Amino acid sequence: MPLAPFDWIDDEARRRADAGLVRTLRPRPAEPELLDLASNDYLGLTRHPEVTAAAAEAAHRWGAGATGSRLVTGSTALHAGLERELAAFCGFEAALVLSSGYAANLAALTALTGRGSLIVSDAGNHASIVDGCRLSRAETAVVPHADPEAVAKALHAHDGRALAVTDSVFSVDGDAAPLRGLADVCRARGAALLVDDAHGLGVLGEGGRGALAAAGLAGGEGIVATATLSKSLGSQGGAVLGPARVIDHLVNTARTFIFDTGLAPAAAGAALASLRLLRREPERAGRARTVATALYERLTAAGLTAVRPDAAVVSVRAPSADAAVRWAADCRTAGIAVGCFRPPSVPDGISRLRLTARADLTQAQIANAVETVLRTAPAA
Amino acid sequence: MPLAPFDWIDDEARRRADAGLVRTLRPRPAEPELLDLASNDYLGLTRHPEVTAAAAEAAHRWGAGATGSRLVTGSTALHAGLERELAAFCGFEAALVLSSGYAANLAALTALTGRGSLIVSDAGNHASIVDGCRLSRAETAVVPHADPEAVAKALHAHDGRALAVTDSVFSVDGDAAPLRGLADVCRARGAALLVDDAHGLGVLGEGGRGALAAAGLAGGEGIVATATLSKSLGSQGGAVLGPARVIDHLVNTARTFIFDTGLAPAAAGAALASLRLLRREPERAGRARTVATALYERLTAAGLTAVRPDAAVVSVRAPSADAAVRWAADCRTAGIAVGCFRPPSVPDGISRLRLTARADLTQAQIANAVETVLRTAPAA
Repeated sequence: MPLAPFDWIDDEARRRADAGLVRTLRPRPAEPELLDLASNDYLGLTRHPEVTAAAAEAAHRWGAGATGSRLVTGSTALHAGLERELAAFCGFEAALVLSSGYAANLAALTALTGRGSLIVSDAGNHASIVDGCRLSRAETAVVPHADPEAVAKALHAHDGRALAVTDSVFSVDGDAAPLRGLADVCRARGAALLVDDAHGLGVLGEGGRGALAAAGLAGGEGIVATATLSKSLGSQGGAVLGPARVIDHLVNTARTFIFDTGLAPAAAGAALASLRLLRREPERAGRARTVATALYERLTAAGLTAVRPDAAVVSVRAPSADAAVRWAADCRTAGIAVGCFRPPSVPDGISRLRLTARADLTQAQIANAVETVLRTAPAA
Repeated sequence: MPLAPFDWIDDEARRRADAGLVRTLRPRPAEPELLDLASNDYLGLTRHPEVTAAAAEAAHRWGAGATGSRLVTGSTALHAGLERELAAFCGFEAALVLSSGYAANLAALTALTGRGSLIVSDAGNHASIVDGCRLSRAETAVVPHADPEAVAKALHAHDGRALAVTDSVFSVDGDAAPLRGLADVCRARGAALLVDDAHGLGVLGEGGRGALAAAGLAGGEGIVATATLSKSLGSQGGAVLGPARVIDHLVNTARTFIFDTGLAPAAAGAALASLRLLRREPERAGRARTVATALYERLTAAGLTAVRPDAAVVSVRAPSADAAVRWAADCRTAGIAVGCFRPPSVPDGISRLRLTARADLTQAQIANAVETVLRTAPAA
């Protein structure tokens, strides 16, 4: 008697339920009902009239989809313009836009490494980097978080081609990577450095030019960055930025670029509009950082444990996964949306509330958020 | 003296140039200059006014981006509605929308298999399936193309959990998988069957309900489908369709779902509009198949070698990669865009012209395309 193919799924669902770790989708309405401190819309641009108008205009002008791989029919002049302006803004020679930041990390890691080469990866790196390492067939050394010495040691234990990879700002705790130290040890070894600037672009550096620009590393010979168009730029998609020869190499070899439909014109148009808006209003970047610091200072002054934010993510510790879920639910009941990170989405098993600082939060909204998070906090 | 980190890229670029395999992006203008037989816009919907208007309306109403993971802020009622209608249309209990078809295949393969389980994968499967197998950590048996007996043999050589995976319509040659035979051998073994219906949805089955509906397999207990929103539906994104417990399992475990920003509202809105349009105008599906057959019959009657199309892709053999590139370029000069598939994008090393049959091609356009392809054909 053959097994039913998916009965094992019920066992896993029961185990998740017993552990209090069931995730369900909660579709939101068109009109926001909650004050948003949970999204990655750091600059408050996703509903900016110029940005949504650019999305609409691109759909009308270029069609609702890219219609094929970027190598066949999926490249438009709109994609090319976005790539040119994004590269120039961030200080890189060239850029390549993909359908997501996830795809961008898979593309960069698989195309720039491979069998016989070494990847040195920070223990706190995003899931898409971990998956890129797995897909690459390279040897991967996972090193302790934010530790250039450990990276140097791993790099020197290997003879062939090597690349170190790190988030610029870590999504879970909001702390920044020691980019200059990492670049130094990579340069000394002739290794490449790949930095995922998903949470840095639009927030760090002069006018939001990103973590690489802030560290004086943008455009460096061995430096490649990935980024998303779905956070500060309020749209969808991802990008790889680097030397022109690296981008040409990805066009020719990166499977998640070659075998994927190009980014929809509406998403490309919206990201380009956000980028231009940010160039015109560079103060948005600093404002997101200021809001984050304000949240951090008020919450920790009142006794909560949080990580000092290096960008726009404020991570507050919860005593347990259950407590984190209840805390986030209580905030929601009070009208505030906050993120709740718990296993298996946290590398260290510690659950957190994750608050994101939007540049467009008012003082009253910040005060309301702080008051709510404090009032609903679980007993220590 | 350390190496420069990317000098090896120049060596690879030279090798590609010597082999005539350099790929470059060719951004197209907003107004089509060529007759399109290269895109995957099978139903001609990507520029349909209802579809582009729905994209624009969704951007205005819901914002330019989903703003976060579907598990945090990225799920809207628009996503939920699209999932409901797509599942109902294709005959499945539930659906989950992701940012690309690539992400959908990675999600399904990694979440439904894993260490100790077996994946049996057709040798002609799409790159995203190959990458999903690699990421899954399952043992993968690659079996000869379209061969249920070979699948049965591979399934019976393994004791634990097993899943067979196939494209419904193979992108390179346009031929269909033997889905009923595959379902039989999977059912006999208690194995799951995952079918990527990227090129079947909108083209095969009654009113374009897809290859699984056409084979009477949609909604089966052990059947899971993936699909794209970027081909017949003219938008961007991907989906997994299956039993509700499978979809719930993906929500809880699929990394390319959990750790990716949700699909942009404009793309969800456009896909939903296309779906509704297809329900209202079901004849579009049959029309795409009729156009494909007409292309095939006229080209082969004139002496070209092509594969009889099972859906909307017509694959014509070229004598060499060089000849294929020149052939496609000559078509382009004559005003016709056709696809050119060559190594490493073809599993068997054989280069092809790839023509896609759009439902909205007129008789005059078909005649023009056939005449051009024949006139520019390389000497046999």
